[in-house]
Amino acid sequence: MGHPWRVSWFLDDLVARAAERERLGLTRHLVPHTPASHGGLLDLAGNDYLGLLHRPDVIASAVAAARQYGGGAGASRLVTGSLDLHERLERELADLTGSAAALVFSTGYAANLGAVTALTDADTLIVSDAHVHASLIDAARLSRAQVAVAAHNDLADVERLLRDRSQRRAVVVVESVYSVLGDAAPLVELADLAGRHDAVLLVDEAHGLGVVGERGEGLAAALGLTGLDHVVLTATLSKSLAAQGGAVLGHPAVREHLANTARTFIYDTGLAPAAAGAALGALRALRHDPELPPRVRANAATLAEACGVDAPAGAVLSVPMPGPHEALAAVEEAAGHGIRIGCFRPPSTPDGTSRLRLTAHAHHTRDELALAAKVLREVTGRA
Amino acid sequence: MGHPWRVSWFLDDLVARAAERERLGLTRHLVPHTPASHGGLLDLAGNDYLGLLHRPDVIASAVAAARQYGGGAGASRLVTGSLDLHERLERELADLTGSAAALVFSTGYAANLGAVTALTDADTLIVSDAHVHASLIDAARLSRAQVAVAAHNDLADVERLLRDRSQRRAVVVVESVYSVLGDAAPLVELADLAGRHDAVLLVDEAHGLGVVGERGEGLAAALGLTGLDHVVLTATLSKSLAAQGGAVLGHPAVREHLANTARTFIYDTGLAPAAAGAALGALRALRHDPELPPRVRANAATLAEACGVDAPAGAVLSVPMPGPHEALAAVEEAAGHGIRIGCFRPPSTPDGTSRLRLTAHAHHTRDELALAAKVLREVTGRA
Ligand SMILES: Cc1ncc(COP(=O)(O)O)c(C=O)c1O
Ligand SMILES: Cc1ncc(COP(=O)(O)O)c(C=O)c1O
Repeated sequence: MGHPWRVSWFLDDLVARAAERERLGLTRHLVPHTPASHGGLLDLAGNDYLGLLHRPDVIASAVAAARQYGGGAGASRLVTGSLDLHERLERELADLTGSAAALVFSTGYAANLGAVTALTDADTLIVSDAHVHASLIDAARLSRAQVAVAAHNDLADVERLLRDRSQRRAVVVVESVYSVLGDAAPLVELADLAGRHDAVLLVDEAHGLGVVGERGEGLAAALGLTGLDHVVLTATLSKSLAAQGGAVLGHPAVREHLANTARTFIYDTGLAPAAAGAALGALRALRHDPELPPRVRANAATLAEACGVDAPAGAVLSVPMPGPHEALAAVEEAAGHGIRIGCFRPPSTPDGTSRLRLTAHAHHTRDELALAAKVLREVTGRA
Repeated sequence: MGHPWRVSWFLDDLVARAAERERLGLTRHLVPHTPASHGGLLDLAGNDYLGLLHRPDVIASAVAAARQYGGGAGASRLVTGSLDLHERLERELADLTGSAAALVFSTGYAANLGAVTALTDADTLIVSDAHVHASLIDAARLSRAQVAVAAHNDLADVERLLRDRSQRRAVVVVESVYSVLGDAAPLVELADLAGRHDAVLLVDEAHGLGVVGERGEGLAAALGLTGLDHVVLTATLSKSLAAQGGAVLGHPAVREHLANTARTFIYDTGLAPAAAGAALGALRALRHDPELPPRVRANAATLAEACGVDAPAGAVLSVPMPGPHEALAAVEEAAGHGIRIGCFRPPSTPDGTSRLRLTAHAHHTRDELALAAKVLREVTGRA
């Protein structure tokens, strides 16, 4: 055909919305990133908490997996896309976190969508913390369950919602270490509350794994909660584990149920071999280098001090700023001094406050940390 | 804590449901897969249509990307996870499909979720073909739009739904080549219909890209539809392109809009470098080996003849079977003869019919094809 149809509400509208974002200083930019090792900025923004993203042994593990298993999995894991590599990764993730079983997904986002939708139904109340990640919000929306949002880390609110529910089932959805504010959830109390109210507790360990606990086993495992039948974890391979992918961890019956019913597992191509290989390499590095988790936490404390905020629960620091323009200006000033920091502006912040988001990394040297602290004092106005 | 809470509706219920699936012969199994090159079965089930999954130049491209850029992207593409590698891949995907711009996602599933949710709102009607993939169904559910399901490939039904709508906006959602039945959508007529009714046409090229068209440019491009402002494509990198990942292709304003508003883009870690590298390697192989698309189509025609069904639109063949048990028996019989075929049983089939699903591959030799044809005649009862 080739008739130049102009759909009245489409491109003009998208262009107008882009102009409006620009006017409000809310345009998001895709800036191709140069690693510090190649002359780029010192990274205090990414999620490579353990500094494993470029480690030769991790890359070698990714390379070996691609050579042995191919560029992709080639199909859903239920067709021909399941590899012994995936099962090895599942066993190692389960071992690290003290879980009985794990199921690996193509992304952390997909793991959250799969876990929440497959463990809930129309007779379920999802009690979701107000600060949970977009993937968990989307997961709750996608489910057939009723969704109630509990005030952030508010046990009384969670208890009230569980107690007053009319649904038979309930799932409490939280993060172990929150992705934007970097604070921890009261997991022991939440697991107890959930158990007393006939509910499951789902904990997203995206920012806890590799960072929290003596061996980087995550917050739930460090607190001894992962053996409990009613606790289910999700995790991502894309942060501490220097790869891509996600996982759900829990009782073997949970794994079996998800492999049979989670749509983002059944109808999605299996995780690429190189990503599974990188994650396995990172898990090995974590076993052989037990100072990695304490080092990232110590570095986080140093950066927190420079910014005048409390030491965080994991590697993520959040520094409130007066507004989106001030936050952007601080990011640019830091970049001028060789430091890359992130910023979250509405609607990406859970509380409407623009914030700097900084991440600590285990591999930063003493000199790099000193420079970072100096720059942070300046751009946050604590110099 | 450590109190052994037993949530009344949880594990016992999951175990009971697993037993019920087993009784009905509907349990899904994760069988670790051995490639034919390592003594496994000849694959007529996976989606590696062009046979690029293990090609040394594709693997070399994945390996080079991992070495240069790391095991993962390390963050969302809006934080520090955007690489020039992603942008190169976007340009090449846009070039192949004759699109003005592309945006790469971490999976094809995520690309579909992002495209549909970001291009629709509460004043939108989504007209979704009855046979679209789970990711598009989930995408429509996740959106704020009203969803209407049109009978499969039924232009009159689509027109009626568009014409009678009360919403200002409308998006027609189809696949170019359908994932289960392997038939093509009437894209020229759909693009025309959508244009006349002030609607956007979204085409998932997951099974068209690399297979349909002289250069593997996909069905929409082969029909000259990709220059049209109101046509948006999605694609996956996990099938013909031998990697993992997805993309949305269209006008630059669409790319800009998605980068700013698609939650599965903004809040997800960028595609792993090795996957982007493998896809770039596959795109290069496709440019240098122009016989790949015609070869996979010829092989598909050979297999179709053996099964007594019409030659398919792409590489996917669907052979109806009397029931789930017969379908499974055929799969097992074929495996006994060294051939791996897939089967779709309810609820994975769009029409409730159990089917064998076979895929053709460009790299199968004449001998492999002859063996496959012989076995297929037997197991489908056409011997
Ligand atoms: C808390 C949390 N959960 C899940 C995800 C999604 O994981 P992935 O990027 O691996 O898909 C992220 C970040 O991306 C996250 O911060
Ligand atoms: C039509 C269709 N769209 C999207 C997808 C999802 O793509 P991916 O597996 O790359 O996430 C698939 C298959 O997996 C598919 O068949």
